Amino acid sequence: MRCFASDNYSGVHPEIMEAIVRANHEHAPSYGNDEITKRVIGLFKDLFGEPCEVFFVYNGTGANTLGLSAITRSFNSVLCSEWAHIHVDESTAPELFTGCKLISVPSVHGKILPEAVREKIHRIGDPHHPQAKVISISQLTEYGTVYTPDEVKALSALAKEHGLWLHMDGARISNAAASLNVSFRTFTRDAGVDVLSFGGTKNGMMFGEAVLIFNPELARYFHFIRKQGMQLHSKMRFISAQFEALLSKDLWKRNAIHANNMAQKLAAGLQQFPGVKITQPVDGNGVFAVLPQHVIQPLQQEVFFYVWNEKLNEVRMMCSFDTTEEDINRLLQKLQSLLNA
Amino acid sequence: MRCFASDNYSGVHPEIMEAIVRANHEHAPSYGNDEITKRVIGLFKDLFGEPCEVFFVYNGTGANTLGLSAITRSFNSVLCSEWAHIHVDESTAPELFTGCKLISVPSVHGKILPEAVREKIHRIGDPHHPQAKVISISQLTEYGTVYTPDEVKALSALAKEHGLWLHMDGARISNAAASLNVSFRTFTRDAGVDVLSFGGTKNGMMFGEAVLIFNPELARYFHFIRKQGMQLHSKMRFISAQFEALLSKDLWKRNAIHANNMAQKLAAGLQQFPGVKITQPVDGNGVFAVLPQHVIQPLQQEVFFYVWNEKLNEVRMMCSFDTTEEDINRLLQKLQSLLNA
Amino acid sequence: MRCFASDNYSGVHPEIMEAIVRANHEHAPSYGNDEITKRVIGLFKDLFGEPCEVFFVYNGTGANTLGLSAITRSFNSVLCSEWAHIHVDESTAPELFTGCKLISVPSVHGKILPEAVREKIHRIGDPHHPQAKVISISQLTEYGTVYTPDEVKALSALAKEHGLWLHMDGARISNAAASLNVSFRTFTRDAGVDVLSFGGTKNGMMFGEAVLIFNPELARYFHFIRKQGMQLHSKMRFISAQFEALLSKDLWKRNAIHANNMAQKLAAGLQQFPGVKITQPVDGNGVFAVLPQHVIQPLQQEVFFYVWNEKLNEVRMMCSFDTTEEDINRLLQKLQSLLNA
Amino acid sequence: MRCFASDNYSGVHPEIMEAIVRANHEHAPSYGNDEITKRVIGLFKDLFGEPCEVFFVYNGTGANTLGLSAITRSFNSVLCSEWAHIHVDESTAPELFTGCKLISVPSVHGKILPEAVREKIHRIGDPHHPQAKVISISQLTEYGTVYTPDEVKALSALAKEHGLWLHMDGARISNAAASLNVSFRTFTRDAGVDVLSFGGTKNGMMFGEAVLIFNPELARYFHFIRKQGMQLHSKMRFISAQFEALLSKDLWKRNAIHANNMAQKLAAGLQQFPGVKITQPVDGNGVFAVLPQHVIQPLQQEVFFYVWNEKLNEVRMMCSFDTTEEDINRLLQKLQSLLNA
Repeated sequence: MRCFASDNYSGVHPEIMEAIVRANHEHAPSYGNDEITKRVIGLFKDLFGEPCEVFFVYNGTGANTLGLSAITRSFNSVLCSEWAHIHVDESTAPELFTGCKLISVPSVHGKILPEAVREKIHRIGDPHHPQAKVISISQLTEYGTVYTPDEVKALSALAKEHGLWLHMDGARISNAAASLNVSFRTFTRDAGVDVLSFGGTKNGMMFGEAVLIFNPELARYFHFIRKQGMQLHSKMRFISAQFEALLSKDLWKRNAIHANNMAQKLAAGLQQFPGVKITQPVDGNGVFAVLPQHVIQPLQQEVFFYVWNEKLNEVRMMCSFDTTEEDINRLLQKLQSLLNA
Repeated sequence: MRCFASDNYSGVHPEIMEAIVRANHEHAPSYGNDEITKRVIGLFKDLFGEPCEVFFVYNGTGANTLGLSAITRSFNSVLCSEWAHIHVDESTAPELFTGCKLISVPSVHGKILPEAVREKIHRIGDPHHPQAKVISISQLTEYGTVYTPDEVKALSALAKEHGLWLHMDGARISNAAASLNVSFRTFTRDAGVDVLSFGGTKNGMMFGEAVLIFNPELARYFHFIRKQGMQLHSKMRFISAQFEALLSKDLWKRNAIHANNMAQKLAAGLQQFPGVKITQPVDGNGVFAVLPQHVIQPLQQEVFFYVWNEKLNEVRMMCSFDTTEEDINRLLQKLQSLLNA
Repeated sequence: MRCFASDNYSGVHPEIMEAIVRANHEHAPSYGNDEITKRVIGLFKDLFGEPCEVFFVYNGTGANTLGLSAITRSFNSVLCSEWAHIHVDESTAPELFTGCKLISVPSVHGKILPEAVREKIHRIGDPHHPQAKVISISQLTEYGTVYTPDEVKALSALAKEHGLWLHMDGARISNAAASLNVSFRTFTRDAGVDVLSFGGTKNGMMFGEAVLIFNPELARYFHFIRKQGMQLHSKMRFISAQFEALLSKDLWKRNAIHANNMAQKLAAGLQQFPGVKITQPVDGNGVFAVLPQHVIQPLQQEVFFYVWNEKLNEVRMMCSFDTTEEDINRLLQKLQSLLNA
Repeated sequence: MRCFASDNYSGVHPEIMEAIVRANHEHAPSYGNDEITKRVIGLFKDLFGEPCEVFFVYNGTGANTLGLSAITRSFNSVLCSEWAHIHVDESTAPELFTGCKLISVPSVHGKILPEAVREKIHRIGDPHHPQAKVISISQLTEYGTVYTPDEVKALSALAKEHGLWLHMDGARISNAAASLNVSFRTFTRDAGVDVLSFGGTKNGMMFGEAVLIFNPELARYFHFIRKQGMQLHSKMRFISAQFEALLSKDLWKRNAIHANNMAQKLAAGLQQFPGVKITQPVDGNGVFAVLPQHVIQPLQQEVFFYVWNEKLNEVRMMCSFDTTEEDINRLLQKLQSLLNA
């Protein structure tokens, strides 16, 4: 099976699998007290600068929800895009676990802009109204677009102006860094991000994400929050070994560049067809396009992908570290034959 | 490093690691819609009988907390041993996620008895008091003892008498089955268990536990609860492949028998020493013993294990699938030399 | 002090105060087991028909939040107007207590229409997305408008079509009934409402609201939910006595008609002025109007009221059972003098 | 109806009722912005010293639960008597609203002692275990006994030693002050209490309790917590007026002394009878006694009271501000006739 459904349909990158196998040696202290975990935390600190507290969790929903829990009280609200993963794709995990309200902000190509966010920061001090405390953005966005460092800084400035924290859901942070061609820290800590979900699974890992907290005060209780949030892995070395492989020899970058390049090729191929319209900037590894309605189902049967917006016949095609040119060609050829039919 | 600290200090059993590597092939639908997951759910149904709803989650805290969430409302209480993992080792995950109160019942060697549980089922119908709704037991218990099928049935009868559910934390269920030398279902569904956490990690898996629900009505919303509980893995095939290996060729049993046998040997060795007292029946893979205080620290430095009860100088030594006779001999020899010194 | 700030700036209607004083006699069983409570529950059943379960709580936030708790699981969502009190004026009580997400639906004069609601009922069965389970409407709406029985029925039909419940926040239900000039049940149970918050405080009571549940199955656990929700009053007779007064001799209606009439007069007076624009239909006891910006503050100093929408210079003026024509005249005269100045 | 069931079977003290009627005058700002509320907060500050933040809520469960919420995070635990109202009589409100675990400490006559509490302060820093953060005591205890200032100080010293807060459930604080014959502050703020639930309802009020926080940092978010906790009353003046009456002319003390005296008389009368045993020190307004089993039901039918411990035939008889000597005589006479029969 080969498809463009999601970057989590891919398996595990061979270098990461090797690292897992290598880590499977004798006994090791559990819950993160092993040597590999210590080393990898060091790698993260090298990449992001200090202070930087690093916590591994199981998945993106866990990383986001617990990260938000660390910086909110239950009477707060979190401002995010109407399309944010935390808002529409994580059940009510954020609400149940934090008690907070998520307030959606209209977005442009999945990105929220300071003016639109500012509209939602109101009634501060009024106990009747949820108190805005966090701006949360996704990098890449759910529409595959990337915030520039300046765009992040503008949101961070707004956050600071009002005493809010800036949270970043970096499920596809590597694709963003590759797209921007800057270091991770340029558009995270240096741009004012306070808490970051650093994604692993969508870039070739088997399981595991990291929560990075750049303000030690905010990290103070996170080891309690993680355990309470059911996200503390016992055999931690097997998450850490994956991150070690991902961060070593720029694997994160090689994977991300490849996936992004594949998306460019796919988009280039798609937009040759009349009746196909690329709807969002292809900044990373996702392509959003409107297809003629009648070709969608038969094309899905050949190479699966998801319809994103049924009303618009807009589809989403995700590339990953293991997407091949053959995958793309197969899709484009099938599309051509369907359009010609 | 070799030690008796916990069965989660062990790594991954080679057959399970092979299964993981084998599963790493091409794309697969995420979130459990892959072929391996379907197959493994079938294996569980073969073992436990139908109806049986099977859900994979990340860890034991998740399995227990979400399992309890499925069978409670927030005004309920859960009756469990004073030593229950859900009560003293899972932070306040159960309270936060379910809203329920956990009420501790005095136990004998970690096991709760119907008479003691019955004492706590009171004020039913009184809105001022938490309403007892679940009896939760651990199999093996936290003291390494095993409930016989009849003991489970007696608790189940009590539960049914009062309209309660019976939950089993089976983090070490394989060790229990090996100890009892009966099928899983004999002391679970056939003995009246409604919801079961089936442990994988402590018996040679890398990550992953299963929640088994024998009453379809109780399982009705569990796929929502799992996602909301941040326990739905995207690349599910890598949990499922592990369970497939564990349940195939009786690997679960071979691992458990080995660990249990090692515990027997360890206990036999320990009780030769004057001044060492085995404090709990060695039903499974754990040995609890009182050691002379002055030997504890130096012995830990040689072969690590945890002190369970500081006041009593009671220690816990856990064996696992990869514990060797050399490990045991090394510990016993060091102990001898310390006692002789 | 006399003002149009809110119907909760008023005190207690004399007939209600008399009932309170009268109830203050000897001892009475607490928590609702007294005679007055039993009588008043009968009055509610007379008004609304049976089956009808009646529970008294302290305030509107409690009534709404607990009512929603009775008909949801934590992975659900509640669809309501973008202006709904539960959405913007009750902190995050609904989120914290129920775990649910509140999803805002665009409204027209505060009313949500079936087409707009239908847009939000999607991804049912998808565990990643909050599962819509309740449509919640306010009667009167936060814009002072009233849903006709047919409008309620249309929403109820939509709810039933999708297996959702219909909840009504009736903080100003008496004003709605007076405005529609129909019985309570016409636009509640007979129109398909499942759970109703019946408001007392804003119509002349000192404290106390009622939650009415028309489906006994949904009411099954409400006495537990109320206690857990910190909304069970011990000296219950003092809430019940108020409701008895309110429901006797049509006091609810006299109060509501008076307040509604005062709003009509106020609106009539306001719209005489050029530069003043009534912005919402005056169905009940609230008047929304755009005023010239420069008059707002000085007018507030004379007779206080709240600015509703700062950008639009839209103000809200609420009338209550004790609003007088002199109050209105004083406001209008002051406004005239400010406009002339 | 006259009885000894609970101090909340009583009605409202006439001076308090007068204050309510007097407060019912014209309009007043809602939610605590009225003049009466400001005055009464001043009275509390006079009594307790500054800094002292004062918040009115509806009931004891609300006061306790929200007070605990202000001083905990969801991974904390609260140490309290096995008989604490928060533990056995407030449903799971504390668990649901705070996420914390309540850990019961064995008590002597309802009082917990530092040695017993200290046993439960363990595994601090271990993320697997609920982190003790609060010691909560009831004054009077649920067994009608009173903590001396020195006993409170000893618990406070223990709390400070371990970085815990000291919370006091003062549902019957006036009875305690009357019993000790010292000022409120002697055994609260001056003895190291951080957060206090100051009870009104059980001492002659209709509804309303106060949360007093002596550390402004802990009070910082309480106005948000109160609203979110559904405990913010709109027509606040009607709570405040009651407290004004209660705190004026020592009404709190007159009521409490009377109730305490009645309990003394009742106990004196009871212990004349052979076969009746007073089981707890009668420090305040409650009497606990073992009665011969056969007299309990018929005695309850004459003058109702609750059986506290069915196994022991221990009953609880509560006196209140309006208990009369006739009430006591009637009970004693009936008891005599039953014993003679």
